[in-house]
Amino acid sequence: MKKLEVGILGATGMVGQRFISLLEHHPWFEVKWLAASDRSAGKTYGEACNWRVRDAMPKSAAPLPVHECKPGSAPKLIFSSLDSKVAGEIEKEFAHAGHVVVSNSSNHRMDADVPLLIPDVNPDHLALVRAQRHERKWKGMIVTNPNCTTIGLVMSLAPIERQFGLAKVMMTSMQAVSGAGYPGVPTLDILGNIIPYIGGEEEKVERETRKLLGKLTDSRVEMGNFIVSAHCNRVPVEDGHTESISIALRTPAQAADIAAAWRKYRSRPQELELPSAPKHPVIVREEKDRPQVKFDVDSERGMATVVGRLRPCPVLEWKYTALSHNTIRGAAGAALLNAELMKADGYLD
Amino acid sequence: MKKLEVGILGATGMVGQRFISLLEHHPWFEVKWLAASDRSAGKTYGEACNWRVRDAMPKSAAPLPVHECKPGSAPKLIFSSLDSKVAGEIEKEFAHAGHVVVSNSSNHRMDADVPLLIPDVNPDHLALVRAQRHERKWKGMIVTNPNCTTIGLVMSLAPIERQFGLAKVMMTSMQAVSGAGYPGVPTLDILGNIIPYIGGEEEKVERETRKLLGKLTDSRVEMGNFIVSAHCNRVPVEDGHTESISIALRTPAQAADIAAAWRKYRSRPQELELPSAPKHPVIVREEKDRPQVKFDVDSERGMATVVGRLRPCPVLEWKYTALSHNTIRGAAGAALLNAELMKADGYLD
Amino acid sequence: MKKLEVGILGATGMVGQRFISLLEHHPWFEVKWLAASDRSAGKTYGEACNWRVRDAMPKSAAPLPVHECKPGSAPKLIFSSLDSKVAGEIEKEFAHAGHVVVSNSSNHRMDADVPLLIPDVNPDHLALVRAQRHERKWKGMIVTNPNCTTIGLVMSLAPIERQFGLAKVMMTSMQAVSGAGYPGVPTLDILGNIIPYIGGEEEKVERETRKLLGKLTDSRVEMGNFIVSAHCNRVPVEDGHTESISIALRTPAQAADIAAAWRKYRSRPQELELPSAPKHPVIVREEKDRPQVKFDVDSERGMATVVGRLRPCPVLEWKYTALSHNTIRGAAGAALLNAELMKADGYLD
Amino acid sequence: MKKLEVGILGATGMVGQRFISLLEHHPWFEVKWLAASDRSAGKTYGEACNWRVRDAMPKSAAPLPVHECKPGSAPKLIFSSLDSKVAGEIEKEFAHAGHVVVSNSSNHRMDADVPLLIPDVNPDHLALVRAQRHERKWKGMIVTNPNCTTIGLVMSLAPIERQFGLAKVMMTSMQAVSGAGYPGVPTLDILGNIIPYIGGEEEKVERETRKLLGKLTDSRVEMGNFIVSAHCNRVPVEDGHTESISIALRTPAQAADIAAAWRKYRSRPQELELPSAPKHPVIVREEKDRPQVKFDVDSERGMATVVGRLRPCPVLEWKYTALSHNTIRGAAGAALLNAELMKADGYLD
Repeated sequence: MKKLEVGILGATGMVGQRFISLLEHHPWFEVKWLAASDRSAGKTYGEACNWRVRDAMPKSAAPLPVHECKPGSAPKLIFSSLDSKVAGEIEKEFAHAGHVVVSNSSNHRMDADVPLLIPDVNPDHLALVRAQRHERKWKGMIVTNPNCTTIGLVMSLAPIERQFGLAKVMMTSMQAVSGAGYPGVPTLDILGNIIPYIGGEEEKVERETRKLLGKLTDSRVEMGNFIVSAHCNRVPVEDGHTESISIALRTPAQAADIAAAWRKYRSRPQELELPSAPKHPVIVREEKDRPQVKFDVDSERGMATVVGRLRPCPVLEWKYTALSHNTIRGAAGAALLNAELMKADGYLD
Repeated sequence: MKKLEVGILGATGMVGQRFISLLEHHPWFEVKWLAASDRSAGKTYGEACNWRVRDAMPKSAAPLPVHECKPGSAPKLIFSSLDSKVAGEIEKEFAHAGHVVVSNSSNHRMDADVPLLIPDVNPDHLALVRAQRHERKWKGMIVTNPNCTTIGLVMSLAPIERQFGLAKVMMTSMQAVSGAGYPGVPTLDILGNIIPYIGGEEEKVERETRKLLGKLTDSRVEMGNFIVSAHCNRVPVEDGHTESISIALRTPAQAADIAAAWRKYRSRPQELELPSAPKHPVIVREEKDRPQVKFDVDSERGMATVVGRLRPCPVLEWKYTALSHNTIRGAAGAALLNAELMKADGYLD
Repeated sequence: MKKLEVGILGATGMVGQRFISLLEHHPWFEVKWLAASDRSAGKTYGEACNWRVRDAMPKSAAPLPVHECKPGSAPKLIFSSLDSKVAGEIEKEFAHAGHVVVSNSSNHRMDADVPLLIPDVNPDHLALVRAQRHERKWKGMIVTNPNCTTIGLVMSLAPIERQFGLAKVMMTSMQAVSGAGYPGVPTLDILGNIIPYIGGEEEKVERETRKLLGKLTDSRVEMGNFIVSAHCNRVPVEDGHTESISIALRTPAQAADIAAAWRKYRSRPQELELPSAPKHPVIVREEKDRPQVKFDVDSERGMATVVGRLRPCPVLEWKYTALSHNTIRGAAGAALLNAELMKADGYLD
Repeated sequence: MKKLEVGILGATGMVGQRFISLLEHHPWFEVKWLAASDRSAGKTYGEACNWRVRDAMPKSAAPLPVHECKPGSAPKLIFSSLDSKVAGEIEKEFAHAGHVVVSNSSNHRMDADVPLLIPDVNPDHLALVRAQRHERKWKGMIVTNPNCTTIGLVMSLAPIERQFGLAKVMMTSMQAVSGAGYPGVPTLDILGNIIPYIGGEEEKVERETRKLLGKLTDSRVEMGNFIVSAHCNRVPVEDGHTESISIALRTPAQAADIAAAWRKYRSRPQELELPSAPKHPVIVREEKDRPQVKFDVDSERGMATVVGRLRPCPVLEWKYTALSHNTIRGAAGAALLNAELMKADGYLD
């Protein structure tokens, strides 16, 4: 089968690099077109990119020219990891020109007609694009994935919400520095330190979680009927967001019920055996001191969410810890899985 | 004025070292007697102790002999930072023999007749020792300070609880490695990592907080009428526990009311101008990204609790961040301030 | 082909864990027998071992019983990563009883009749065991690999020494904490710090380097005719020793000559295609700021030495940086490659 | 005595902030004028500066206006910590206009008529400014201090060079991130990593060391008659450059002679009792594992160089470790001490 050509907007950034790394031996997609800011345009990718991913830059990527962020020569399927300062307009321009924009940027996530998608959680929300294309008169479309902190939270909540219903969610994050991109967090700010603030992050977690776990009805998403509160902190960790989570349910559940809900949870990516799908979307660790970044962040090639320490919460009902790889499952891998679902469901034909 | 002689149980440990460092130029107390485990007994302190505090070991401490943990030659006032595996019996033995044991160990904190004391929060609880001495037929007494994670939480809660009443408290900690003593946390466990578990810590925070903010009535403490839930995490930080806190109140309050309650809060240590008392027990930072370990942990020589980021909590009512120095305010400094209050109130005459 | 059964002395330590991890899918060897200190003996490996390697413990290892460090039930081929406090006598006891002891411990490295072996450097030194067995009247034998800091140095020196001769070597190391085992270096000692001392390390590097690059003549090794000086430092890095090296040669060489000597260097492990042999024993990075732990430590599954920054040294002649994985190439992988060479050369028949 | 007004070029950078912090309670100097890049000019210092020093910004600094880097309103004495991209021309412009520019920038350090000055090492070099003013027809002058890595090296070498003469110096540095300014080194580059390259640093150390230890003859400096080789590495440390040093001498010396030379070393800043002078320019630690950043970097308020581990070097003659605070002794404190010497010697009248 001939692979589908894909382009990347924001190819030189941290998430752009992850896209290129994850796509290196992808069975369906092939990177053929790269674009970045004017500063990089006109150079080859090898010249323009300060490669920061541990695995070496794929040999095929280095000679590719870096284009301006303009449609035209670009292939139909476009991954976007543009800075949110510019992503809004550029993504619309590409969608208008007929491209399928699978975006990691935050700009359009909360647009009523744009799917905010986790294939393991709300694959049906993809249907929103019909309204989107109709209303906006676009030949293309925009599909988004959530913020890197939201995604681990929602992956761990979805099996619970489906079975018992959620009333309240309290989440405190300890977020890795790679979430801030490159150069991102200065060493002088975080070595031996904790920064109890990440601009806009708490608001994103609080609203995105409710859209993701909301119901699609009549071409719109009814926000999930529960309350979310987030405390977001930056910690001296390279990759992997750890989250301390407390929840109150709508229906009583025992610890064993919740653990079983996590363990048996499967969704469309698993049914379709999508190439980037984790076999176990949620992995439950039994050890008293897990999940830990050091041991668990790369579980299922960084695509699983790992949970542990489920125990009663005196204030809400249950508390536990979740861990998710923020630049794989929380960014490039999330968008890639979105594109795989779209391909499987015929949106890229 | 002649200084009062003091002894230290567990003098070679991290908290023991902090006692010696804080007492170096103390106006009221003078270190004259040191004791530690059998392994150290018989050596001089300079030989026995692997000094880990940044400030150099006081010259006067090095030649002091290290005794076994037996009363007899020890002075009346004894600070204890013994390991909880042995502290229980040894502290009782000293109290029985007539010593005033001011302990940082966890063993007796929840005993009904033992004060669990923060002079800035519940100085009246000290009166519990009358019942203690009566019932136990001791010539001496035991007074304790809370766990290092509890203390920052309670210092930040006390001004709010006094004025508005507390209903619910949710706390997620990011705790420094010095809280685990020395050698404590292996580098291989925490460099670039987060450990979402500290044995027994969550239980201590949940019960100590309610005793500290409880009411003394008829020689016993009625536990505070509110619920506490704690998530405790270890992070790669040397000194300073950062806490993400959400609270629900009994009486409505505006953000400005809470900030004012923190700012104007003063208690007996400030009235008595105790030598180790912070002038401002709670310091409120206005910056959006504070408190931070790097800038704030040494505020008021490590004796203040620093708070910031007060904002509404969608699940409870308010949320904020607190920071406290875990081996000063959370351990040696806490016990020292307890002893200062006891001296000022005539318990050491 | 039936795999050869192997045993591990010191199986619960950091290097013992690496042995088990590296041997998991080994084509020639199979772990069948484990031994450790009396504290662990009698338990299963899963119970006794605090597993610290990022990859999960092999399923086959968990149920194996942990034996005392006594020969008898042990298979012929034994890997030893015992603490040097006990390794000396135990290894001799096993060799005397007929076992082939392939040891990572330092005790016998400098014994005149014990091979100190890097298969990529001095495979001929293995012949020393003939004298060893003859003189000691052993049915078995002891073969050792060098210290973790020595090995990266010598791998980078060998191609140069072969071609141009060495006169002087100056090496300053920046060593990872995993070199100190587990629990090893306390976080309080190294977070944000440098420790300019590692007991015995400089002496080991200075003498082992000369034995490794010495000539085998008449069943003894004539020490290499050059001088070595080592400065050893501990740094807050998990795995990977970085070394700043200056050298003076016996024959003049250009930078291009040295780089070519590194690039084309191959030795017996490459000729024999031993399972753990790196294809390129020495990898030369051209970037101005490499090798770096982050990007290069796992090169060739941690078995290659990575060099870079070759430039003139005003004091000696040339200077460069070398990097080597200290618990793989510098310990368990080193011993494993030794055993593979011994198997290929008929020492295990 | 009325304090002398001073200005700071590059006031918002890391070294500029250190100037302001060190000058807060200075007995001779008072900060009255601040300048920075066009981006900051026009704001108050409090608005323009992202303050990163642990001690809080002095209250007196916050309301000061930030000027453009133009002479005119500036006081006579100017400290410069400008980026080397712009420092060259701006400093000349100020000197030409009559200002005494005490610079931490690298641009003019090697100019034949510009003193490269460490008051504890080569106070007589200050006399170079006579030739400078004469030849350049300047009413003002430029005086410089060395690179942050050079200064600790030279402080430790000076007592040895004076007494025994130096032939060869080999230095490998492990440099803190604060040396790269702010934002400086991205966390993703250095957390758990070592970077074996700092642009231009090795060349600076090699040439500045020889100028500093050179002899002033006939209004020029004859470079020191010894060879220097530097390896420079970046490590995950906040403040404090650690250096592994080997030396060969011109006259034989015993270890005790060298230690005595260090201990008794005093120079003009000590004789003159300059306000920022360390009482002991070189502190010798006897412990086998010192100096360490954690314990020693703030010795004498960051103005002393701390040495230890003196032992024979097989390749040269002696080897030892030195530690120096890179933004105090190595930058702002260095320039401040230069200005104090100039004031004491009448250059500011």
